[in-house]
Amino acid sequence: MNAKELYAIIQQKKSFLCVGLDTDIDKIPKHLLSESDPVFAFNKQIIDATHDIAVAYKPNLAFYESMGLQGWQSLQKTMDYIHSLDDKQLFTIADAKRGDIGNTSTRYAKAFFEAFAFDSVTIAPYMGEDSVKPFLTYPNKWAIVLGLTSNKGAEDFQHFTNQEGEKLYEQVLKKVASWGTTDNIMFVVGATQTAHLAHIRSIVPNHFLLVPGVGAQGGSIAEVAKYGMNKQVGLLVNASRSILYAGDGKDFAAAARKEALTLQQEMNIVVSV
Amino acid sequence: MNAKELYAIIQQKKSFLCVGLDTDIDKIPKHLLSESDPVFAFNKQIIDATHDIAVAYKPNLAFYESMGLQGWQSLQKTMDYIHSLDDKQLFTIADAKRGDIGNTSTRYAKAFFEAFAFDSVTIAPYMGEDSVKPFLTYPNKWAIVLGLTSNKGAEDFQHFTNQEGEKLYEQVLKKVASWGTTDNIMFVVGATQTAHLAHIRSIVPNHFLLVPGVGAQGGSIAEVAKYGMNKQVGLLVNASRSILYAGDGKDFAAAARKEALTLQQEMNIVVSV
Repeated sequence: MNAKELYAIIQQKKSFLCVGLDTDIDKIPKHLLSESDPVFAFNKQIIDATHDIAVAYKPNLAFYESMGLQGWQSLQKTMDYIHSLDDKQLFTIADAKRGDIGNTSTRYAKAFFEAFAFDSVTIAPYMGEDSVKPFLTYPNKWAIVLGLTSNKGAEDFQHFTNQEGEKLYEQVLKKVASWGTTDNIMFVVGATQTAHLAHIRSIVPNHFLLVPGVGAQGGSIAEVAKYGMNKQVGLLVNASRSILYAGDGKDFAAAARKEALTLQQEMNIVVSV
Repeated sequence: MNAKELYAIIQQKKSFLCVGLDTDIDKIPKHLLSESDPVFAFNKQIIDATHDIAVAYKPNLAFYESMGLQGWQSLQKTMDYIHSLDDKQLFTIADAKRGDIGNTSTRYAKAFFEAFAFDSVTIAPYMGEDSVKPFLTYPNKWAIVLGLTSNKGAEDFQHFTNQEGEKLYEQVLKKVASWGTTDNIMFVVGATQTAHLAHIRSIVPNHFLLVPGVGAQGGSIAEVAKYGMNKQVGLLVNASRSILYAGDGKDFAAAARKEALTLQQEMNIVVSV
């Protein structure tokens, strides 16, 4: 999927919602625990309840890896299910924060783009160009590189400032943008970082931004849209826990849809302007 | 395993060799491809041929992930095999370069420390303290944080310099060291970075350093030892491709041992001084 196609889906669905599949076996409704694969059973119902109003799904790899082989099976089934629905109306993100020397990043790209057929992978930029480039060699696939993250620890290194007053995250945005195009690179910018969002948009005016931190982490869609939108919207806003765990009974999927719909309706307002 | 125990193994084996299990199905000897699990069959023979002279094994997760479920099964079998040999004489490293917001890093810690029972995980520091801390809550387990890496891309951000002339990698070493102890934090410093190694040792005099880049990437053990050793050795030097693919026939394990022994003999000289 390229940027134009992604924008077309956003326009059609009046949504730039990404649902984060941070599926936690300890938090899903208890009645699912008798299923042969509770994580997949949960994901399937969440996807069924939201795929008309979400443009993207973002499995958080840590939650699957922490379950060992069973977790990877649940992830495979989840991806197969998304692809079975896919009329090219859903974008998928492996939230994996990978990045290593070139020959190793090549393997991670193979893992996520080939074995699981994700559209994109999140990447940590610390190891530089040869750690990112292997993800840019697949047509219609994306590297989503950490810019300014939503967590407290973002303060530790991302604001490290050079002699010219430039911060590390600004340098990351500029350099990484120069390694690819607006059709194969996005950046992660936390929704808790709205104070910096307008500035980030001035550095990378045309790139899509993946914005986590709405919902449980406290960011607001109106604020993100105000400072982060560009002419092609240019945003995927992620919510995970607030949607997934909106309910904990047999009607959990309906509760999740209600929460997702609330977010989509906020998005509808700004997309339709 | 704590630092004292690791040092005792190094003294006993006269070795600080880490064998990187970057096992590549396209590079292993062809006769193994008829095995039910060629990657595990290869790893088992490499481990059998080297475990008396290696102190650590470092599976590179990318190579396993790129094979999908089968890869994770091979990794599980490899770890089970190492543990079956283990008379507490082997240290294990999940070379995974993970790191995410706190609740997610907690899951990665669970994946590697619990599901696979690794002793340590490599971590990318970009997301700061709350991305590293969850790995420090397990007794006798380690976070091995990227300092200055062996690849060309290390130049892109790791040498980013602040107003006081301090480089990002120096700031990473100092801050990360303050989050834990010399019993639960190591740093990755590339063997291709010997020009910086003495300086790094002055910043973190007592921490173990994991040093990749010897062998295929061109670093030398004598140089690394000269600038990087401390009183408790304080080094794990990794070689991957030069050992794994020393031979490509039925005697590949003997060829791997010969290569590992050459490195161990260089280590013997410096450990015994």
